[in-house]
Amino acid sequence: MKIPPVKGTRDFYPQDMAVRNWIIDGWKKASIRNGFEEYDGPIFEYLDMYRIKSGDEIVEQLFSFTDRGGRDLAIRPEITPTLARMVNQQINSLPKPIKWFSVPRLCRAERPQKGRLREFFQWNIDIIGEDDVIADAEIIFTTLDYLQDVGLTPNDIVVKISSRKMLAAVLQAIGVAQNELEPLYAVLDKRSKVPDDAFVEMLVEKIADADKRKKILKLMSIESIEQIGDIAELGKNAKESIDELQRLFELLAVCGVAEFCRFDIGIVRGLAYYTGIVFEIYDKVGELRAIGGGGRYDNLLKQFGGPNISATGCGIGDCVLGILLEEKGLLKPGPKKLDYFIAFTDEQFFKTAVEITARLRRAGFAADFSYKFTNLGKQLSQASDRNAQKCIIIGEEFKAGQLVVKDMKTGKQELVEVDKFFANLKTGAK
Amino acid sequence: MKIPPVKGTRDFYPQDMAVRNWIIDGWKKASIRNGFEEYDGPIFEYLDMYRIKSGDEIVEQLFSFTDRGGRDLAIRPEITPTLARMVNQQINSLPKPIKWFSVPRLCRAERPQKGRLREFFQWNIDIIGEDDVIADAEIIFTTLDYLQDVGLTPNDIVVKISSRKMLAAVLQAIGVAQNELEPLYAVLDKRSKVPDDAFVEMLVEKIADADKRKKILKLMSIESIEQIGDIAELGKNAKESIDELQRLFELLAVCGVAEFCRFDIGIVRGLAYYTGIVFEIYDKVGELRAIGGGGRYDNLLKQFGGPNISATGCGIGDCVLGILLEEKGLLKPGPKKLDYFIAFTDEQFFKTAVEITARLRRAGFAADFSYKFTNLGKQLSQASDRNAQKCIIIGEEFKAGQLVVKDMKTGKQELVEVDKFFANLKTGAK
Repeated sequence: MKIPPVKGTRDFYPQDMAVRNWIIDGWKKASIRNGFEEYDGPIFEYLDMYRIKSGDEIVEQLFSFTDRGGRDLAIRPEITPTLARMVNQQINSLPKPIKWFSVPRLCRAERPQKGRLREFFQWNIDIIGEDDVIADAEIIFTTLDYLQDVGLTPNDIVVKISSRKMLAAVLQAIGVAQNELEPLYAVLDKRSKVPDDAFVEMLVEKIADADKRKKILKLMSIESIEQIGDIAELGKNAKESIDELQRLFELLAVCGVAEFCRFDIGIVRGLAYYTGIVFEIYDKVGELRAIGGGGRYDNLLKQFGGPNISATGCGIGDCVLGILLEEKGLLKPGPKKLDYFIAFTDEQFFKTAVEITARLRRAGFAADFSYKFTNLGKQLSQASDRNAQKCIIIGEEFKAGQLVVKDMKTGKQELVEVDKFFANLKTGAK
Repeated sequence: MKIPPVKGTRDFYPQDMAVRNWIIDGWKKASIRNGFEEYDGPIFEYLDMYRIKSGDEIVEQLFSFTDRGGRDLAIRPEITPTLARMVNQQINSLPKPIKWFSVPRLCRAERPQKGRLREFFQWNIDIIGEDDVIADAEIIFTTLDYLQDVGLTPNDIVVKISSRKMLAAVLQAIGVAQNELEPLYAVLDKRSKVPDDAFVEMLVEKIADADKRKKILKLMSIESIEQIGDIAELGKNAKESIDELQRLFELLAVCGVAEFCRFDIGIVRGLAYYTGIVFEIYDKVGELRAIGGGGRYDNLLKQFGGPNISATGCGIGDCVLGILLEEKGLLKPGPKKLDYFIAFTDEQFFKTAVEITARLRRAGFAADFSYKFTNLGKQLSQASDRNAQKCIIIGEEFKAGQLVVKDMKTGKQELVEVDKFFANLKTGAK
């Protein structure tokens, strides 16, 4: 019986796994050198967890099920609710700020498209317990530390940054009511994703007043932070949020990543839960979906039954990133390789080959041999296929306690006493 | 709203995650140095995949669900069906033998108990396309390579080994019919897990003939391979399987792991699909469930619509292993640490601290600083809490282009020119 894989999932054959590991290892290393600690939660949680953050709509995008105990559960579509649950559980004992990262496997019951699969991996970094914009700067710098490490430059990618706090204050100064804000965010988030006509049409639905609409359109077309003041008379909140944005850009310049960063009033983020700085990372050509995005979400932990504590974070998935790196020729997983391949010139030396291989492995070296005796030429070509650095040849010399060690790069061969060989062996990188 | 984690799942806080990573990294390194390549599949597959290998009973142990497309899916309870599916898909292009490993997250809807959770990680190593018992020896050696690496000795653990092929041949020589074998395996597998009375009772249910039962009980009490011949007149199949067992023990001795390995007729493995060598790894005291187990399953790929190709493998979960390592004091994840903590003696040096930190991170070093200015003593104690190797102190000297570098172990302080400091910095282990 032949059964196919499920639509929208991936099989990771060794060459695919090498790419996945290379991406995820890079995320982990960048997180650690930026002072983040790794956490993880279960692959499934109570379904209600996802409703709290994202409302009822999210339920349609979940793989959900009921277990034999009657619990309504769902495979996680994101890890932020788990983060909020876990941090709340130990809120009093965790030193602040909390700098945590995770590289969860996530599943969403969406229609598979380019850069969007039903199962994917996502790098999440979050800082909890720091109000100041320095935490937002740290999040953006850390993502850029990774993205630079894999070879992306300001010619390849851009971080578009705005502020929900600023947007809310300016929209209110224009005359948009508090209760109109949330539905309006969803529309503004679409500005660069739909044609201008369609955008205006969506806007008319939410904002009846033509004068307000005109001001909103003018606001959405500004290109610098300085222009915000031209839109409306700014109150204290708006001014504070503008200062904050300016301070963020200053800190990003201090960190040496100014060239990657740009103010973009169009970055709104669809979700209701953002409260301050918001940002999205795009390829410069603009042909792909967002590589990642994030922002400040100061109310989430409280919504999950915890204290009123500020938080900011970011998520980067492996799908769009993988496509971009592939396009740029930057996907460079390390080659598979062996330290030693152990060849033998005659069946009688088979057990010796097994023994030498086992000793090398116990000493920490990657070593392998042929399970079947074939001629030396074939074994050497196996060694070369496996990218072995050295080949040990066990032959008649072994009866006199000697091995041939062949350097596979230079081709140079050396006759070595077995005992000396093992005595001189430095322990491999275990 | 406060929502708890789901029963039988684990939250991995940073200290738990460090343990999980330490275990899994050890599995990966042992696999690689033994010549295995990593693969992985999706977290869910078609429900039917699991029925093929394990029959309808498995369905009760699955977290299953129906997606919006009407597909019956299940979170994977094991990865072997995925392995069979993936290998079959590329059977013609994959060089043999195929030596693959994986460290999947698995879920089973079982009642949580000591060493058994509803979500866990399992190390899987498999060799496909090698009939000879050398492949079984490789599997057992690889698991022991890892288990020795974490510090377990023959005083701590034992690998109990038998052969399904031998058992089948001897049972048939006793007079057990072919169709009685499969239900009998399930009973024999329970021998060491239930009281003697209960075992005999279960046996009576399956084998009506008292003489046969007596012979089966005698067979199940033998302690060495040599005693098998005392049970019945052995045919060619039985003799071959005994030779194979003896050759396996010989190869394990050649590999230097004989002390860990023991013949044990009681190792049957419940599942129908084993066809040759079978083994289980136990703690020597015998108070825990099996740490892991495996064996030869030569018919599985064919059952999954592939060719008739031999296979052997092993699985080790993280739960029982974690308990054993904890009990033995062998759980030793590396300590968290920073290369540098950057302290500043006055608010005015905040941006300099941010800049120096960013430069160190970009050079590959793990570096962090305090988001808020506090006195130097507090910052130094933060540095020490974070296990920083060195602390950089930015103070008045910075105005003359100098930094203080404090070695946190020796306490020694040094005044260094900023430019020289960065020029002398070796690139960190990225």
